[in-house]
Amino acid sequence: MPSGRKGSVPRGANLLKAAQELGVELESICGGRQTCGKCQVIVEEGHFPKHGLTSRPDHLSAPTAREIEYSQENRLQGRRLACAAEVLGDVLISVPEESQARKQVIAKAASERTIEIEPAVRLVYVEMQPPDMSDARGDWERLQVALEEQWDLKGLSLDSSALTALQSNLRQGNFAVTAAVWQNREVLRLQPGYREGLYGLAVDIGSTTVVAHLCDLRTGAVLATEAAMNPQVRYGEDLMSRVSYANSEPQGLSRLNRGVIRTLNELAEKATAAAGLLPTDILDAVVVGNPVMHHIFLGLHPRELGGAPFTPAVSSALDLKASDLGLSFHPAARLHTLPLIAGHVGADNVAVLLAEAPDEQDEVMLIVDVGTNAEIVLGNRQRLLAASSPTGPAFEGAQITHGQRAAPGAIERVRIDPLSLEPRLKVIGYDEWIRPGASLPHEARATGICGSGIIEAVAELFLAGIILPDGLFNPAAAERSPRVRYQGRTGEYVLADESLTATGLPVVITQNDIRAIQLAKAALYAGSKLLMNHWGAQQVDRVILAGAFGSFISPYHAMVLGLIPDCDLNKVVAVGNAAGDGARFALLNRNLRQKAARLARWVEHVSTPLESSFQDEFVAALGLPHSRDPYPTLAPFLPQPSADGRTGRRNRIREKHQLV
Amino acid sequence: MPSGRKGSVPRGANLLKAAQELGVELESICGGRQTCGKCQVIVEEGHFPKHGLTSRPDHLSAPTAREIEYSQENRLQGRRLACAAEVLGDVLISVPEESQARKQVIAKAASERTIEIEPAVRLVYVEMQPPDMSDARGDWERLQVALEEQWDLKGLSLDSSALTALQSNLRQGNFAVTAAVWQNREVLRLQPGYREGLYGLAVDIGSTTVVAHLCDLRTGAVLATEAAMNPQVRYGEDLMSRVSYANSEPQGLSRLNRGVIRTLNELAEKATAAAGLLPTDILDAVVVGNPVMHHIFLGLHPRELGGAPFTPAVSSALDLKASDLGLSFHPAARLHTLPLIAGHVGADNVAVLLAEAPDEQDEVMLIVDVGTNAEIVLGNRQRLLAASSPTGPAFEGAQITHGQRAAPGAIERVRIDPLSLEPRLKVIGYDEWIRPGASLPHEARATGICGSGIIEAVAELFLAGIILPDGLFNPAAAERSPRVRYQGRTGEYVLADESLTATGLPVVITQNDIRAIQLAKAALYAGSKLLMNHWGAQQVDRVILAGAFGSFISPYHAMVLGLIPDCDLNKVVAVGNAAGDGARFALLNRNLRQKAARLARWVEHVSTPLESSFQDEFVAALGLPHSRDPYPTLAPFLPQPSADGRTGRRNRIREKHQLV
Repeated sequence: MPSGRKGSVPRGANLLKAAQELGVELESICGGRQTCGKCQVIVEEGHFPKHGLTSRPDHLSAPTAREIEYSQENRLQGRRLACAAEVLGDVLISVPEESQARKQVIAKAASERTIEIEPAVRLVYVEMQPPDMSDARGDWERLQVALEEQWDLKGLSLDSSALTALQSNLRQGNFAVTAAVWQNREVLRLQPGYREGLYGLAVDIGSTTVVAHLCDLRTGAVLATEAAMNPQVRYGEDLMSRVSYANSEPQGLSRLNRGVIRTLNELAEKATAAAGLLPTDILDAVVVGNPVMHHIFLGLHPRELGGAPFTPAVSSALDLKASDLGLSFHPAARLHTLPLIAGHVGADNVAVLLAEAPDEQDEVMLIVDVGTNAEIVLGNRQRLLAASSPTGPAFEGAQITHGQRAAPGAIERVRIDPLSLEPRLKVIGYDEWIRPGASLPHEARATGICGSGIIEAVAELFLAGIILPDGLFNPAAAERSPRVRYQGRTGEYVLADESLTATGLPVVITQNDIRAIQLAKAALYAGSKLLMNHWGAQQVDRVILAGAFGSFISPYHAMVLGLIPDCDLNKVVAVGNAAGDGARFALLNRNLRQKAARLARWVEHVSTPLESSFQDEFVAALGLPHSRDPYPTLAPFLPQPSADGRTGRRNRIREKHQLV
Repeated sequence: MPSGRKGSVPRGANLLKAAQELGVELESICGGRQTCGKCQVIVEEGHFPKHGLTSRPDHLSAPTAREIEYSQENRLQGRRLACAAEVLGDVLISVPEESQARKQVIAKAASERTIEIEPAVRLVYVEMQPPDMSDARGDWERLQVALEEQWDLKGLSLDSSALTALQSNLRQGNFAVTAAVWQNREVLRLQPGYREGLYGLAVDIGSTTVVAHLCDLRTGAVLATEAAMNPQVRYGEDLMSRVSYANSEPQGLSRLNRGVIRTLNELAEKATAAAGLLPTDILDAVVVGNPVMHHIFLGLHPRELGGAPFTPAVSSALDLKASDLGLSFHPAARLHTLPLIAGHVGADNVAVLLAEAPDEQDEVMLIVDVGTNAEIVLGNRQRLLAASSPTGPAFEGAQITHGQRAAPGAIERVRIDPLSLEPRLKVIGYDEWIRPGASLPHEARATGICGSGIIEAVAELFLAGIILPDGLFNPAAAERSPRVRYQGRTGEYVLADESLTATGLPVVITQNDIRAIQLAKAALYAGSKLLMNHWGAQQVDRVILAGAFGSFISPYHAMVLGLIPDCDLNKVVAVGNAAGDGARFALLNRNLRQKAARLARWVEHVSTPLESSFQDEFVAALGLPHSRDPYPTLAPFLPQPSADGRTGRRNRIREKHQLV
């Protein structure tokens, strides 16, 4: 149980072997030496576990001295070690979840996805014969034999750092070692005696933000998540200015590359410290990013990605040594980069596919991973389309007057009362809604506004009638509230006055901020729309809103803003950093790396900026929520436009045409 | 011709394909693009080559414009390019040797061994389609397809340095590149357009001397040979003192390792400079050495090699990246170390086996590779035994009063007239024999004496009766010549007086020098004798005298010294640095690396110092030529011992027992 398998095994076979013969894989690191305790089972029938280990069992052999010792140290509580208990008659055995070899973990709460833990690196414990004069073989050759005999691992190679430490590790462990084996092909690390720790890092290199998840490769648990600004931002906020920088400066590529490598090292340092580990405990890593980030990370010049035909240097997945890239993980640590779909649709997009698995759905899914460069995926198991759209960094808080990263002090949620035009706020690091005039502890004072806060703020301004469908401030609102004020000819809204901020200056949303958000959301929407046109979808069944920026986006506000097309609001889900999740999945399960390679070849890519209709769709998407496409779902919520307002909006949008 | 193969091919097939179908492999780098000119053939019948390329051929297609162009630039002189000439009827074709794919070269002059050139790295030229918008694949993916289509190379990986330069190389070569491919598995280097150069380094790391051969991997030619002192000598002349140094000093291993790596880099620098190349032109290397040198070179602690059970960290062959070891060859250069036979019988011994191939002989061969640590091999195709013997550095000129490395100025040959007791000398760098009183140019003046010179000097001193069979100076000789003189109680012989030396001081052979040579040769002989006893050989059919020290050893003098057992002098051959030759063979032919692995497993190793009879054999071997074993071959040459001399010698050898 719970597999329900049954069968006969030779009398005296232990339960570990018996389970294997019946096709049930039990966890085991020590290979049946009653050391690791991973193969614990519950005997349901044919034995008297209730009476304790020392009672005379009926159909299982009595516990060995080693099992009793292990049991006392670790409180087995009636369980048996499968490797110690020999079958003497009919028994019914339950395998608790933690003893199953291929554990499933809930890897993604929002979409309730579970994945099997089957990392590229695994631990095996071996015991060897000590050397003697009759045996001329080296330590490594004897270890190879032990690995083959005890784990059926054949033809392994040995990383040079493991080779250097081989002799001392074997002797320190009295010729018993725990080997970390990569892809059943190479021994990366040896540790004396029996060990358990096995860790990896999943990294999403965004144009603006770099996120790293430190994972326990045996349990699948995320031990720590750290994020940092991409230091390349100082050389340009969007991808094209980074490409230009690499093109124009002789040391440009090297500077961009060193910056992101340093950032990864710092993230690894922080994440491992948070988990009580060291960066050198990291044995495997998966890195994703858009094609420009991917190339710069690998030290490849992004020049060719800057223009047609957008040819990447390499599009397939790579298996590298982390140290070759300058990463200070374990000297033998491996690093896997997911494949690109095309020169403008990157490994981050592939990671989004892994995380959300639209290829396994019947529903037509639209996945929008919002960042400085947004990834868009549309389709289902029949057909998948992918594109990227240069949104700009507005959604990450850049180019916004009081924008900031999602960090303590950032306004992340906004509500505006349509009658009083007064706001309510939520600030990261403080649980309560904040109203004007509140008396606040220091940590509740706002320092700025992050991506999700801006989306909500602009949507709420529109819902409250403070800004019009064309994004301009409504002069009538200025007459109703002192929060709406004009600096010369352009309006602004005071979101948090001095008393609510840490700086002592108000946090405002300006006309320029709103325009930046309009441009960004129009680029996103136009990209989605082009994919829908390509796919032949009039509407989508489900929308996944993903993005690394701070806490989750509010689906309702994203739709009010017109960032996504109309859809049943119950079918719009915000999932956080999907690209980072995909990197994590590929870290935890090596089969998903192969799936990623298949997906990268199968998915069709659409080059949105080269599509002739992109410009038209972009302009039409500038309005709130949209100048042309209907949003029946939102009808009850939107302010009633006056006939005059409509006309005025159209005229003004035409004027904005000049801006594009 | 000359294979004699014949058959039918489809009309219009070119001669390159036709040859392939008939199982004749022609050389080709460009893959049939009429670019490299490697597939030249001579048309014996069915064509009129005598009339020149532009004449109308009968049964071959007319030369293409590209072939005519190539022909004019390179003076084909009636030959055709097999890739250009299409078969239209019966023809008889000769393949000149240089066009045969697997060229044989005479790789070893002394034993006239030929080997096929089939290096681990080869060059292939590919032409690709330029990228376009319809093709989302990366440069590397398109290159992979081209490599598979044009060269049947599947599933290749790409070295990270080649990946970094991939885009610029492809574009610089207008999407035609020459790839250097290692073991049909990995692309190490890409060069724009069509290229030919391919170089490797074969290295023998001796305890005292490091030798490097720079080889052209396409022709097998040795382009340069460089040698240097092993800088580890400063930490101890013999292996055990290096092991002690590594054991006792915290930075000991690291210093020993860095010293030899630096030496290899210097040798690579010198050798490539001599050939008009750069160290970064080196793409492959094979390194051999005794187990301690092998371990230190790889950064492995030699501790375990210092005592029973002499367990090496690794005994099998390794394929490494040269850069991982700190070698400044091409960043992607590979490095192969030959396997060890046991913890005290090393990769140098395996190299000697490769070079001399006793496993292919019926004759029982004794191979003695003389160095500070000597390698000894005995046997034939039936059975092979191997051992090493710690000879000490005397044969390399160390521990000798005026000893020096084999370099210009070193006395390398010595003759002493048994009547006048006057010497004749040869000095490296000067062709004439030198006699006392000669008027010499500066370059002919001696600076010291090298290994081969010492062997000849001691043997000649014995043959002239100046020293007795026990190695002591004969007081009677001092009465006959002023060259034999006593400093207190110990004698010495003036080999070159002030007028013949560059230093203005005489070069002398002292009693201590002679004792050092006796100890060294006794260790060698005792090792050989133990192997003969193990094998059950009363005598050997052939003796190979190998050694890195300077020019070749004189077999006659080596036998007079008792360095080797009695053997027909016509069957004693001096072959120079056999270990270095073996390394070179493994560099030029990758199949020999596999043979080396088989040999290392097959050969039986004998641990000479642990054999109980070693001490006895060693003591008996101290006398000249030997105290016990007969040398019938030498009977005509040796001085007649007086009855008194015999007795005296025995007594004195017993006294020396104390020394051992």
